[in-house]
Amino acid sequence: MHYDLYYWPGIQGRGEFVRLVLEDVGAEYTDVAREPGGMKKMQAALAKGLEGVRPFAPPFLRAGKIVLAQAANITRFLGERHGLAPASEHGRLAASTIALTIADLVAEVHDTHHPLTVDKAYETQKAAARKRAAEFRRGRIPKFTDYLERILAANGKVLVGRSISYADLSAFQIVEGLEYAFPKAMKRRHGKMKKLLALRDAVAARPGIARYLASTRRLPFSEEGIFRHYPELDAK
Amino acid sequence: MHYDLYYWPGIQGRGEFVRLVLEDVGAEYTDVAREPGGMKKMQAALAKGLEGVRPFAPPFLRAGKIVLAQAANITRFLGERHGLAPASEHGRLAASTIALTIADLVAEVHDTHHPLTVDKAYETQKAAARKRAAEFRRGRIPKFTDYLERILAANGKVLVGRSISYADLSAFQIVEGLEYAFPKAMKRRHGKMKKLLALRDAVAARPGIARYLASTRRLPFSEEGIFRHYPELDAK
Repeated sequence: MHYDLYYWPGIQGRGEFVRLVLEDVGAEYTDVAREPGGMKKMQAALAKGLEGVRPFAPPFLRAGKIVLAQAANITRFLGERHGLAPASEHGRLAASTIALTIADLVAEVHDTHHPLTVDKAYETQKAAARKRAAEFRRGRIPKFTDYLERILAANGKVLVGRSISYADLSAFQIVEGLEYAFPKAMKRRHGKMKKLLALRDAVAARPGIARYLASTRRLPFSEEGIFRHYPELDAK
Repeated sequence: MHYDLYYWPGIQGRGEFVRLVLEDVGAEYTDVAREPGGMKKMQAALAKGLEGVRPFAPPFLRAGKIVLAQAANITRFLGERHGLAPASEHGRLAASTIALTIADLVAEVHDTHHPLTVDKAYETQKAAARKRAAEFRRGRIPKFTDYLERILAANGKVLVGRSISYADLSAFQIVEGLEYAFPKAMKRRHGKMKKLLALRDAVAARPGIARYLASTRRLPFSEEGIFRHYPELDAK
């Protein structure tokens, strides 16, 4: 099955969670908006829908006649189709719970640089961003990383079951993103997230992921994306 | 099957999306933290886990040995079990896409009164809240209500397929919540969300929902919940 992924072409963003699954399982896919004329296709899909589905926003995925949006929804769908999800119902729901909690973290990361509105630039809301980022570093980074670390402490090397799932790939991505955006704050957490760092390394070493990370398909983190490095928002 | 719902006892909050599904399908359930001694049970589950699952936050649900969190995840699980979800894979994924988009809206509503941090009271962040709420009223209420209205315009009286699903119940709840929190801003939108208002009325008239709304189990909206009415955050 060929997949069409629709996401903003210049950033990792929420699309990256989907790209990681597609790359890990070796799926055949088109990153539509990164192809010539692709942005027009994506805008047409947003304006008129695709197979009767009108997504709220990218990322969205087309799999034949199936069209779905929401990163954690797409990764669950792909993970369950391609053996990158637990087999049991209990495990599948544990994985989707974790992936959705990670999606909440991603939204909070976005709000560290856009605390007042998504519609205006960071530079227009810097004072509020400083306050939100300070609270995020103080209260939220520990809460989210502890959550994942405790799951690993109870379960073993992966978040659910006995083998890597799409939830682990999502955990990799948020560790990488937080390290990029908040290097100083994260360095202080390292002692308390050793299992999570080991999981990050294990995901990075998977053949499909390693190939992807070394390719030009992996876009760099940047100050256009969700995980942005603004020194004034990191710890001192 | 008996369900245990774990959620904060005094508010509708994110737990309400789950309660609506449980009530509509007539499921037998315990709203754990509203029972005597229930808060202790919920805190113990948060601290030590339940069936090996440690949720990040309420709401979470126990269904025998299955434990899952995240409101849109729980409503999908219950909806698919109890005939309150589309039967086709395409439809199931369309419903989960919509439910997750509604969950994003709920997070944005929360941030209108807590733009800087969830850990401190609204009163400590009123100036930022005014700015965020103004942007929310201007940009986000129209975007989200238009999204749902267009889906209804294309599909008919319900959001997915031919009969009511958990996604429709979630749409009911956010219309009710937005009407409570932003009555003036919403009144200006009414002309552009007629199908969504009709859906709200259709959900309210369903036997299980009507019984629930008339019962003491339905908690009132309040300024402790997610949808809060602060006149200074509404339109003039």
